[in-house]
Amino acid sequence: MRSLRADERCLLCSLRQAESLLKKFVRNPEKRWMIFKEIFKIMGEMRWGIKPLEVNGAVHKFVMSYMKNEDPFKEEKRRSNALAMELLKFLRDEILSQPDPIYAALKLAASGNLIDLGIPGWTVEDVLEKFHEAYERPFDREDYEEFMKAFESSSTLLYVADNAGEIVFDKFLLEVMKRENPSLEIVVAVRGKPIINDATLEDAAEIGLEEVAMVIDSGVEEPGVILEKASQTFRKAFFELDMVVSKGQGNFEGLYEEERSNLFFLLTAKCEFVAEVLKVPLGSKVLVSSSSL
Amino acid sequence: MRSLRADERCLLCSLRQAESLLKKFVRNPEKRWMIFKEIFKIMGEMRWGIKPLEVNGAVHKFVMSYMKNEDPFKEEKRRSNALAMELLKFLRDEILSQPDPIYAALKLAASGNLIDLGIPGWTVEDVLEKFHEAYERPFDREDYEEFMKAFESSSTLLYVADNAGEIVFDKFLLEVMKRENPSLEIVVAVRGKPIINDATLEDAAEIGLEEVAMVIDSGVEEPGVILEKASQTFRKAFFELDMVVSKGQGNFEGLYEEERSNLFFLLTAKCEFVAEVLKVPLGSKVLVSSSSL
Repeated sequence: MRSLRADERCLLCSLRQAESLLKKFVRNPEKRWMIFKEIFKIMGEMRWGIKPLEVNGAVHKFVMSYMKNEDPFKEEKRRSNALAMELLKFLRDEILSQPDPIYAALKLAASGNLIDLGIPGWTVEDVLEKFHEAYERPFDREDYEEFMKAFESSSTLLYVADNAGEIVFDKFLLEVMKRENPSLEIVVAVRGKPIINDATLEDAAEIGLEEVAMVIDSGVEEPGVILEKASQTFRKAFFELDMVVSKGQGNFEGLYEEERSNLFFLLTAKCEFVAEVLKVPLGSKVLVSSSSL
Repeated sequence: MRSLRADERCLLCSLRQAESLLKKFVRNPEKRWMIFKEIFKIMGEMRWGIKPLEVNGAVHKFVMSYMKNEDPFKEEKRRSNALAMELLKFLRDEILSQPDPIYAALKLAASGNLIDLGIPGWTVEDVLEKFHEAYERPFDREDYEEFMKAFESSSTLLYVADNAGEIVFDKFLLEVMKRENPSLEIVVAVRGKPIINDATLEDAAEIGLEEVAMVIDSGVEEPGVILEKASQTFRKAFFELDMVVSKGQGNFEGLYEEERSNLFFLLTAKCEFVAEVLKVPLGSKVLVSSSSL
């Protein structure tokens, strides 16, 4: 397996993300200029060999330190959650009536990783068609048999969540899994601090995630879990629970090199880099076992 | 007139340009990483208030210092020149048969600023249609009357050239102007050193530019003339000749704040910034007098 080392594309991608954040939250162009100069100083010190997530995490952490608002995406995340809950009302029965509801719910959760639900003014009608389209696309790479084997032999599960909005579909997936195995004990890990639109404890509470799982925070401030930076609680869960499902690209970047059995990644490959590691085209929907990487 | 001060968009735009250059000419990703870190150090020192061209110029100069090849776009420029000469064979009579050939040749030269002629494998047929399309579009902003008044009262002209390829159409424009006024003495200024696909003395010689004008080099290494960095010869020509036509966005950025009479800019506005200064939509074709800015 090719190791994921940041290259100059990651530097530019992080800068683009910083640009779109700063454009939104810092009005004064001179102040934005000064912040960028500070970012360049940080990047000027980055050593070759670090991971994309470390580049992105360092830049984001720095940019966030300039935001007056502790959680600048709060409104956007709230909108995403509300919209996703509306969407699910339309989709729930359709998924449950499939021959294999777990497979269908996995596809739905991966599709949730693809669509930006936070755009102001978007209605259920606007998104429902896009969502159906995304859902209809099959997985480009999947280890579903292995996934089901792990599921059938597991009594505990750690689910590492990604963004607000899509956590609604994650919750639904976990519900469907619990219908098959009601005694399954589930822990869901969310971010330790607000970072872009990633789900936090507050966002999880908003959609009642505690109804299906124990919710913990990973302690991580990057847009993806890196084990060395995670809390003791998270690490314990990661290594001791029977099965782990990691959602989204950020968590994949952070965890794909970890060695443990029954570790699965559910995501859409949104950047060239991750697509290369997964050997799939850019934009692919993936359910992959770490053992097959 | 709004002054053109670089903001964070210029930083990112220069980085994107550096990325595409380095991707092409530096194979080793670790080396690219190290070069980017150096660029970040340079950008970390840039003070608020400098011009876009200074950002771009500094970055390009640095990137070029890493190229083994003194003129890495040599082949591409040669291809552009050859293709443009082929195109002109098809377009020459059409332009000359227009009711106002000077106006038509100005439009043609501005269209030459829009289309990338250096793409390998492109044939005359591929480009001719695009070229016609670009040519058919009217100027989005023009001071043609003032241009003609200046032309009629001028016996000397400085033309500040931009890219290889399009200089073929610049030469043709100057030919058409000389048909109207055979005693017009023309000086064409090209770049002092290879910079991207900008025309140099060598590129100018390749298309026989000396047949219609005296060719000088501006002494400038940036992708646009900044007067303080130009040679004594260029500055003398800029201030002493009766009329100046500055071609392309780079030269516009460098010269639009200079004060002299009969100074005209012929260009396509390719970035938001320049479009804002010109108060035209992005991608506009423009012939503008400095007195109307």
